[in-house]
This record gives sequence, structure tokens and C-alpha cells, in this order.
Amino acid sequence: MRLGTLEAGGTKMVLSVGNENNELLEQTSIPTETPAKTIPAMVEWFKSKDIIALGIGSFGPVDLNPKSQTYGYITSTPKQGWTNQPLLPTLQESLHVPAMIDTDVNAAALAEWKLGAAKGLNSCMYVTIGTGVGAGLVVEGHLVHGLLHPEMGHMLLQPAKNDPTPDGFCPFHKGCLEGLASGPAIAKRWGRKAYELPQDHETWELEAWYLAQMCMNAICILSPDKIILGGGVMQQKHLFPMIRKKTQELLNGYIRHQAILEKIDAYITEPGLGTKSGATGALLLAKQAAGIPEG
Amino acid sequence: MRLGTLEAGGTKMVLSVGNENNELLEQTSIPTETPAKTIPAMVEWFKSKDIIALGIGSFGPVDLNPKSQTYGYITSTPKQGWTNQPLLPTLQESLHVPAMIDTDVNAAALAEWKLGAAKGLNSCMYVTIGTGVGAGLVVEGHLVHGLLHPEMGHMLLQPAKNDPTPDGFCPFHKGCLEGLASGPAIAKRWGRKAYELPQDHETWELEAWYLAQMCMNAICILSPDKIILGGGVMQQKHLFPMIRKKTQELLNGYIRHQAILEKIDAYITEPGLGTKSGATGALLLAKQAAGIPEG
Repeated sequence: MRLGTLEAGGTKMVLSVGNENNELLEQTSIPTETPAKTIPAMVEWFKSKDIIALGIGSFGPVDLNPKSQTYGYITSTPKQGWTNQPLLPTLQESLHVPAMIDTDVNAAALAEWKLGAAKGLNSCMYVTIGTGVGAGLVVEGHLVHGLLHPEMGHMLLQPAKNDPTPDGFCPFHKGCLEGLASGPAIAKRWGRKAYELPQDHETWELEAWYLAQMCMNAICILSPDKIILGGGVMQQKHLFPMIRKKTQELLNGYIRHQAILEKIDAYITEPGLGTKSGATGALLLAKQAAGIPEG
Repeated sequence: MRLGTLEAGGTKMVLSVGNENNELLEQTSIPTETPAKTIPAMVEWFKSKDIIALGIGSFGPVDLNPKSQTYGYITSTPKQGWTNQPLLPTLQESLHVPAMIDTDVNAAALAEWKLGAAKGLNSCMYVTIGTGVGAGLVVEGHLVHGLLHPEMGHMLLQPAKNDPTPDGFCPFHKGCLEGLASGPAIAKRWGRKAYELPQDHETWELEAWYLAQMCMNAICILSPDKIILGGGVMQQKHLFPMIRKKTQELLNGYIRHQAILEKIDAYITEPGLGTKSGATGALLLAKQAAGIPEG
């Protein structure tokens, strides 16, 4: 049984074929240019693969309300040409297969919850910290959509006294998470790419402090059973112990739960599926679209 | 069919009897003194009422994990005498009826979602701003517990430049929501009770700005379908339009959804059940405990 998956990103589209055993079998990547160019290229690849269903994890914002007339559209993205793009309907009609869509981060959260670091728990939050900052949520076994879908990158944070650019770089918000802690924010603050900065550079203390605030606010608002941090910035593995320590310091013993007080190494953690969370999540969505029961 | 409800608060215990039609029939209130004094008084009242089940909405933190050995205990509260108090087990054993417990704010959120301002929606957040700040959450039809339960009052906020006490008054956290925006925080900042301050006092602009940050962060992290604000401080009804306006200003058009852009009066709103959200929620919990199906 062959199932298609699409990780739709602002830079590239990653297309895979997997099977009902949650295995990814083959993969290709197509640059995200105009829809007129990129969509037919994706259709062509999938057509040659004989898939019976498609799962999509997409950059956002995406309309995820099945009752909406624009369900499955990418809506108000700043990505040129992709505003109000009917991504799901177009692919579904061209490929003649059932399809399901969610945000890229919700797909990753779903995969981590079903098969990865949060397996067996009631809830988890998957955060990607890279070009942007976004989060997917599983709560009591359900992917969270709500009004639209979470846009966690834009929560407001307390500025650090030693941050040379405490307002951050988000064009919408003064001092929001993404504007302070995304990869491009680090690069703009220091004039060098994040991965070029040495491990003892002051940026990492700042970064850990902002990401610890993010963890703290998510714990206070949502109390997830696990926080999973992925994305390009989190390839700097030395950030993990720093974020854990600062989260404990910020919470200051207020949330009296073993997971935070004693076992925070397992609580704020790397993705269990490594870099495959997104594609595996899209595969789980494809299985849902195909009506394959969870085993 | 007579069902008991308990709203367990740090100052008083409010006990009611209701029926399966969600009607509250009679009510009494007992001061929260020591458990040795208060619990027998509650047991006596309920015993005289011939109830078949009990629903409890309690101040926290409460252990809500049914698998835990301390399920239904009030755990690490600063309220003297109530630390590690087996509230649910004690009442259940004394009254010989099935019982269910959740936080006071989750009970209120449940009632608002089933019968009040959020009826028919997938999710809602109920926030009380009073002696403390706390929130209850319904997400995709489920009450959210997570690791422990949300403790939204302790999210960190950006300090206001014109706040004479920008660190707030929480003994645990510098600049958290409760420390900046609870009733006691307002009183400590100005040396006068909140309700004594006139409507044109600068505190209300500050208060609205902090509560707008709370709304913004909750929208970014969770994207609830409705935000319901209750509690003593929100009896200052002039705060509502100020909070709505500042939430829109802070989000700055980023979340492109009608509910926020055009219909925010209905999005950030008063409780539909007035001051009865908590007791009604406890009644719904009692119905669950009694195995009465939702009609």
C-alpha cells in the first residue's frame, strides 16, 4: 500500500512515498517557486508513484476548518504567489486520491506523539526553532487547531537586559519569540549566521533564556506532558541543557511535578524521530485520509 | 435526582445541590478554616441533602491524575493546613457517593463550553482574574490537564514602561501575570483596593495591557475559539473594551481571523453563566460521576 506525503515548506517541497507500517520508502525535493510551476511538478512525481492517499504537513497559515469554503488553502502567507492558494483541493483533484492536511508542526507533533518521544502520553508540544518558530500540539490525544492554529512564534517575551536588540526583528511584534530567537533573528543581531557563532558566544545564553521563557509560558498555559524541540537552531545541541536549567530557574519550583523538578532531561527533549517527524506525521495523515485504522 | 457540588476556595467553600437539568436548587457557604473543622461541616451539610453524586471544582494545585496515589488531593498549596489534603477521597468515603474533581477554573470552562458563552465551539479558555489568576481550558471537547494542570497566572509578561512596580508581587516569579495583574497586585501597587480606584485611574490602562498580553500569548500558544474573562477584577466592566482593543493592537493583524479582526467583542467576553459558571461546572462533573449521559 503506497501513501504519499508532502512536507510543504517556504523553501522546498519534500515529497515522500511511505507505507502503512509507517516506513518512508523514497523521497524527493522540489524547490518552492510559483504555484504554477511547483504544483504541476509535485503532481507529476506523485502520479508516477501510484499512491492511494496523500498526507500534507504545510507551512502556514493554513485553513484547517473542514466546514470552511477555503479548507486546505494556504491563506495569508507572506510567501509570494502562495497567498490564498488551494493546496489541498488542487492536489486532491489532480491526483484523484483522498488527502488530509495539517500544519507542518502539527504533523510533526502527531508523529512524535504516536511513534516518537511522546509515545504513550496524553499530550505533547513540538516546537521547531529555525527560519521561524512554530509549534504543533497534541492535547488529550487530539491535534489542536482552535480558532486557526497556534502561532506560537509570536508570543511576547520579557526582553533580556543584555540583549543588544531587545525588540527583536519581527515586522509585526515588538519582542516576540520569533523576532528574538529564530535563526534569522540571531543572524541579524550579530551579523553572522547562528551556526558560525562559537559555543561560548553570548548569543547562546540569550537564546536559551528566550527559549526557556517559551517553555515556561507553554507550561503555564498548557501544561504539556512533553516539550520536543526541533529545527535548525536546535541542531546546536549544547542549547538543550541550558534551556532545561533556565526553565527550572524561571519556574522557581512553582510547578511541583517530578517531570520538571527532577526529570527535566526527559521533559524538554529532542525529537524521537530525528529529522523524520514531519514526513512521518504526513504519513499518519495519509493513513487517516485512506481510512487505515491505527494499529 | 439530587447532585452535590462543591466550589472549594481558599476563603470559602460554596456547596450546592442541583439536578440533572443543570439547575442549581440550593446553596450554602462555609468559611475555609482548617480541614479538621471545614470538612466535617461540609459532610454534614451534604449528608442532610440526600445527594447521589458529588462534583468538585477546587483551588489548586490538585492532583488530577486518576492513576496517581494522591488523586484528588490538594497538593502544594500555600493555604495553611491544606497541603497534601485528600479532599476527594475524604468526601467520597464520608458521603458514600461517586465523586469527580477538577480545578475550579476547569469546572467553569466546562460549564461555559457546554452551556454558556462557548456553547457549540471546539475549544475555550476561561480565565478568572481575582485574588489570583487562573485558567481552565477545553480543547477539542476535552478538559486539559496535561502534566499537572495549567497555571496560567504565572506566564511571564513584558513589563510596562510606566508601571511603578514592573516586577510585580509574585513571590516566585519576576513579572508574571498574577504578580502584575491580580487584585492584590493592583492593591499593592497603589496602596488602595482595585475597586476603590476610579475608572480614569492609570491602573486600568496598565491592567488592560497586561491582560491583553495574556490574551495574545494564549492565542499564539493555543488559539482558543473563545476567551472568557471572569473573577473579581473583571467586575470592572470597562476593562473589556480596553482589553479587546489592546489585544488587537498587540497582535497587529498577524492572526487573520474574523473573530479577532472584526468580531472581537464576541471573542473576548464575559461568562455566559454569570457567576454560576463554577457551580454549574461542578454540577456537570457530578453528573459525570453519577454516570448520567449528557443530553
